[in-house]
Amino acid sequence: MTYCVGVAVEAGLVFAGDRRTNAGPDHISEFRKLTVFEQPGERVLVLLSAGNLAVTQATVAMLQESASRESAESLMKAPSMFRAARLVGNVLREVHRVDGEALDEHNIGFNAGFVLGGQIAGEPPRLFQIYKEGNFIEATVDTPFLQIGETKYGKPVLDRLIRVSASLAETAKCVLVSYSPTLKSNVSVGLPIDLVCYRKDSLKLTCRTTIGTDDPYFQSLTTAWDVGIAALFRSLPDPEVG
Amino acid sequence: MTYCVGVAVEAGLVFAGDRRTNAGPDHISEFRKLTVFEQPGERVLVLLSAGNLAVTQATVAMLQESASRESAESLMKAPSMFRAARLVGNVLREVHRVDGEALDEHNIGFNAGFVLGGQIAGEPPRLFQIYKEGNFIEATVDTPFLQIGETKYGKPVLDRLIRVSASLAETAKCVLVSYSPTLKSNVSVGLPIDLVCYRKDSLKLTCRTTIGTDDPYFQSLTTAWDVGIAALFRSLPDPEVG
Repeated sequence: MTYCVGVAVEAGLVFAGDRRTNAGPDHISEFRKLTVFEQPGERVLVLLSAGNLAVTQATVAMLQESASRESAESLMKAPSMFRAARLVGNVLREVHRVDGEALDEHNIGFNAGFVLGGQIAGEPPRLFQIYKEGNFIEATVDTPFLQIGETKYGKPVLDRLIRVSASLAETAKCVLVSYSPTLKSNVSVGLPIDLVCYRKDSLKLTCRTTIGTDDPYFQSLTTAWDVGIAALFRSLPDPEVG
Repeated sequence: MTYCVGVAVEAGLVFAGDRRTNAGPDHISEFRKLTVFEQPGERVLVLLSAGNLAVTQATVAMLQESASRESAESLMKAPSMFRAARLVGNVLREVHRVDGEALDEHNIGFNAGFVLGGQIAGEPPRLFQIYKEGNFIEATVDTPFLQIGETKYGKPVLDRLIRVSASLAETAKCVLVSYSPTLKSNVSVGLPIDLVCYRKDSLKLTCRTTIGTDDPYFQSLTTAWDVGIAALFRSLPDPEVG
């Protein structure tokens, strides 16, 4: 299924998405869910996708085609992040017009979600979640993270530890920690994870990396988290149960 | 919605269920989801329920009626925990026969789940989960816990920390810790929590308590857990993000 998350903190934006795709438990593949649209000095947009792969790939492909054609209606020309989010929603609606009826006939739900974040010169960084219906919401300081896909096991970690005043590095750490319970409890999410950081007002990607099974930082982070949680649990007093 | 969990460890059984019931977010009430059937020296059975309250209450009421009538077909007479689990399933199917069609007509799913655990003299303690269809599974040493209702936020804690060799007290602590992320991230689960422990071969309830908002142990446990998780997170090194 994939688990993707975008976070907007004062220092900038952090995005992550694993590549696990499954058509049933006996059909697992790897597809990248993170796409960057960048014009250094002018705009950086990061798009995360989850859901039916044919739907999300069609949407991303149409967005990439319009961007490369330098069409007026493209993520590379949108005058604001709000307009960019609306464009993603409109393209998704176009995919629904083309494929929705056939999916219906086969009783397959039209299932797709996107997180779009970034900065366009003249605006602050912004972060949106686009629903399968094509409408969308924007993250705020009260709820600075947006998740799509297999969100449930990571949510308590983010609820607990995300702070809008945190550094980009600490925010990236928190995002990666939220993958730990997700990877343990849900086989529809799996390494590698694509991770992107964007520092506010830099108007170019700050960091883009892919975390695989042999990534030493992620290994040490998740091991220390596992060991730390177990030690914390042991350190707490037991209740009296008679 | 309620979050209920039963755990079978070598030392015995632990059960917990909160009382939150909601018919939409603007209609929240408190109903006990944990029912005990006990004949000290002969059997102890604990039943947890989650789902449509009319369905689960009807099922529990019919089980209680048959138990008080000393019917041959009752949880007080069932010759084994397997037969007891089958009885719960059969009663649930009877409720479906009575109410299922009317629920269908109103497009309301027949939604109910039960956890049944306990010990009947001559058998070891056993733990079952009964599905809305009336069939059921039994916990094993490989997967010693069974959850119903709002299970998702507690699952990573149990996956990580439940050990079949743990004491009853440690197991109860683990169950209570699994409520911490659930209470934080899900308003359809709320205090109080009914907690029952059963020590193997005692054939009487070991401990039965209700944990409300002013419970000093639960307060100190969840506070220490929150503070400990935050300290653990801070102690881990940040990634290099450029």
